[in-house]
Amino acid sequence: MGSLENRVFEHDVMEIVQTRWSSRAFDRERKLSEEDLGAVLEAATYAPNCFNEQPWRWVVARQGSPAFEAIVSTMTPCNQAWAPEASVLLVMLSKQTFSYNNQPNRFARFDTGTAWGYLTLEAQSRGVLAHGMGGFKPDELRNRLGIPADFEIVALAALGYYGSPDYLPDSVKAKEKPNPRKPVVEVIFTPEI
Amino acid sequence: MGSLENRVFEHDVMEIVQTRWSSRAFDRERKLSEEDLGAVLEAATYAPNCFNEQPWRWVVARQGSPAFEAIVSTMTPCNQAWAPEASVLLVMLSKQTFSYNNQPNRFARFDTGTAWGYLTLEAQSRGVLAHGMGGFKPDELRNRLGIPADFEIVALAALGYYGSPDYLPDSVKAKEKPNPRKPVVEVIFTPEI
Repeated sequence: MGSLENRVFEHDVMEIVQTRWSSRAFDRERKLSEEDLGAVLEAATYAPNCFNEQPWRWVVARQGSPAFEAIVSTMTPCNQAWAPEASVLLVMLSKQTFSYNNQPNRFARFDTGTAWGYLTLEAQSRGVLAHGMGGFKPDELRNRLGIPADFEIVALAALGYYGSPDYLPDSVKAKEKPNPRKPVVEVIFTPEI
Repeated sequence: MGSLENRVFEHDVMEIVQTRWSSRAFDRERKLSEEDLGAVLEAATYAPNCFNEQPWRWVVARQGSPAFEAIVSTMTPCNQAWAPEASVLLVMLSKQTFSYNNQPNRFARFDTGTAWGYLTLEAQSRGVLAHGMGGFKPDELRNRLGIPADFEIVALAALGYYGSPDYLPDSVKAKEKPNPRKPVVEVIFTPEI
């Protein structure tokens, strides 16, 4: 499940956090099982969220389906170089209004991010690689998939089982290591009070 | 760590997901340890995010500190009824521009939500209750804490150890059960393609 290069932990945080990183190398022989797919979506469903609105929505596209091809066609070349080998592509949508009063939900994107966090950690616990992508054309994707205006298209994700990076083009293979992170002290904001 | 009322799982998802819910009942005798606080913030740091910007920032306020009092003063009465018993209050900030080019980061809020997801699950693995809040006055809080304009104030959170709800006022005690969730099938969006 990848090396731990670039990752040194100060605390004994959960193994699924320590080992997770956004690889681009899938096991191309294995389709994502319905059980694993169902479990990662169910874990996402239990993310905390504002007023229990659950603003997240998922387009789930299996490799080879028309939706899968449409999603790939709207990706940047950088993502097209590896993501089409995923077993499943997700489109993450976020409902922009609260259902109980039709007012704007300013937590919609934040809550969808939380659900994505739950999804990725449940995935990691199952040996499933879940890699998010921001590089795509949302307007084009909206047209291709018929996404209603009230749903923001937030991000894409590629899902499948971890595999060897051998098959990847060199340009992608060169990225196959975890990114480092800032020390926690750098993301603490000390208020003027 | 709370009942599982309202929660029926179709899949064998991680125990920390199945047992986590947003209680309001803290153990008022126990301060959050530096180890647990450090670990939850470190777990958050390893959330996946766009271009590894790590847009999240945390204001960490211990009970009794001037920042803690300032945060409480900007909360809605609903939150003031329970959150002041937390050992630590967090303010979640999100840097609105990419540091490498100063352009808007449209994933900032989403990525901060993902980090919050990681934080809550690391918390759950340690018996730490982490409860997010949207009910507060962001502009007032910005002034009180001197938050720079480039950082959006996204949400608050209350952290501490799980405790008995006995001490809570009746109006809060009545909320002490997990919320149900929509079945996963209701958050799958089937595209017109």
